[in-house]
Amino acid sequence: MNQTPTILISNDDGIHAPGILNLVEAAREFGDVVIVAPDSAQSGMGHAISVGKPLRMYKEEISNGMTGYAVSGTPADCVKLATGVLLEKAPDLILSGINHGSNSSVSSLYSGTLSAAREGAIQGIPSIGFSLCNYSHEADMTASREVVRHILRESFRQKLNPGALLSVNIPNLPFDRIKGFRVTRMAMGRWVEEFDQRVDPYGQKYYWLTGKYARQDDREDTDEFALAAGYVSITPMTHDLTAYEEMSRMQHWSFD
Amino acid sequence: MNQTPTILISNDDGIHAPGILNLVEAAREFGDVVIVAPDSAQSGMGHAISVGKPLRMYKEEISNGMTGYAVSGTPADCVKLATGVLLEKAPDLILSGINHGSNSSVSSLYSGTLSAAREGAIQGIPSIGFSLCNYSHEADMTASREVVRHILRESFRQKLNPGALLSVNIPNLPFDRIKGFRVTRMAMGRWVEEFDQRVDPYGQKYYWLTGKYARQDDREDTDEFALAAGYVSITPMTHDLTAYEEMSRMQHWSFD
Repeated sequence: MNQTPTILISNDDGIHAPGILNLVEAAREFGDVVIVAPDSAQSGMGHAISVGKPLRMYKEEISNGMTGYAVSGTPADCVKLATGVLLEKAPDLILSGINHGSNSSVSSLYSGTLSAAREGAIQGIPSIGFSLCNYSHEADMTASREVVRHILRESFRQKLNPGALLSVNIPNLPFDRIKGFRVTRMAMGRWVEEFDQRVDPYGQKYYWLTGKYARQDDREDTDEFALAAGYVSITPMTHDLTAYEEMSRMQHWSFD
Repeated sequence: MNQTPTILISNDDGIHAPGILNLVEAAREFGDVVIVAPDSAQSGMGHAISVGKPLRMYKEEISNGMTGYAVSGTPADCVKLATGVLLEKAPDLILSGINHGSNSSVSSLYSGTLSAAREGAIQGIPSIGFSLCNYSHEADMTASREVVRHILRESFRQKLNPGALLSVNIPNLPFDRIKGFRVTRMAMGRWVEEFDQRVDPYGQKYYWLTGKYARQDDREDTDEFALAAGYVSITPMTHDLTAYEEMSRMQHWSFD
């Protein structure tokens, strides 16, 4: 690839979130950037797509003087519209984020940020999702931009496979206090739900989903372990959900 | 387990869809059934959860004289509310479906049906998603009910592991023409997007997401292959998204 690469950028916090601007700023050094992102926050959207409602896509000025495309749908919709309608040629790389909040362990499954990247991987386009372990929209992303640069540099050097998907989680530390980079596995764990039950002015119950992360994995090669130790975690992911060991084990089952 | 098992049932087509009634009818023979399902269609919701809006859950009469709980959220929300609020003890098994339409190959990622089951598996509860390869709400589910019975019988006999997740796809055939049952892997493939672009009465463009499935996998042990040959496909799934081969391959990368 000798031409300037085209880099498609999306996210799940919406086109005006600080995270995407920081990602754009770091990625511009590596190629021509096209921004297609949701017009509103889409956190927790998992790999949702818009089946029953039509989508809108409109040009939108974003705060650093650049123009992007806002989509009235999910992160996965954004990538589908970008590759299916907007771009004449598939982009060379898809980036998503920088998410305001961690996407380690099972949050990978609920994450809208990662679903944009996963949609790219399904289409055979190398894709990377970035998440900073700080939920605030005021978070300082100076270190995160530097992390993005380091990862893009090595990714272009090593050449990512067509369907490669990386999930990068960045500890909430200044760059000089980040210990380094680790290639990790997704930690097993779960969110333990604690619903906040309330009663509306009309006497009807409703529930806010809250919850605490319950660690179920003490291995030292996980995303959770790396982050807790002050490392950037890079988890290569697949979208093949087959449980191969179970598949072998079940071959003798008799359903007839 | 000597007591009557508790079976939680959800879906993504909504609590009044014919599919869930058929699933309930088949599952009742195996335990005490509790129904918690979305109050509206949630197709394509992937593993979405409701982060920014509160949830409602209300008792609802369903058409076969049974009572269920309707939830104003996603399939994953339903399972979270059922285990976190409604049930005192975790259910012994979670079933989702019967979906009106196939959930083979990459549709596993977009599927709301499977996300309800996957949410169960994350919580350590064995879970099975059922999908019939017929999108019509008028589809004849006589054979599907029989398939559910066969699979539940063997699943109880073999004892599913705590985090087991099975995705069952049923060919659209009468039971006596179904060739048998196959334990399969998820076929690789993708949807090729063909957006239907229209213009609204105000002159603004909008897009309907449509698409064709593009097969990228000729192996004979896939869900797609089994279905095309007239077999019920049973794919054991994991929610560990780590790409382990990539993980080994990338250990020498240098991001510093």
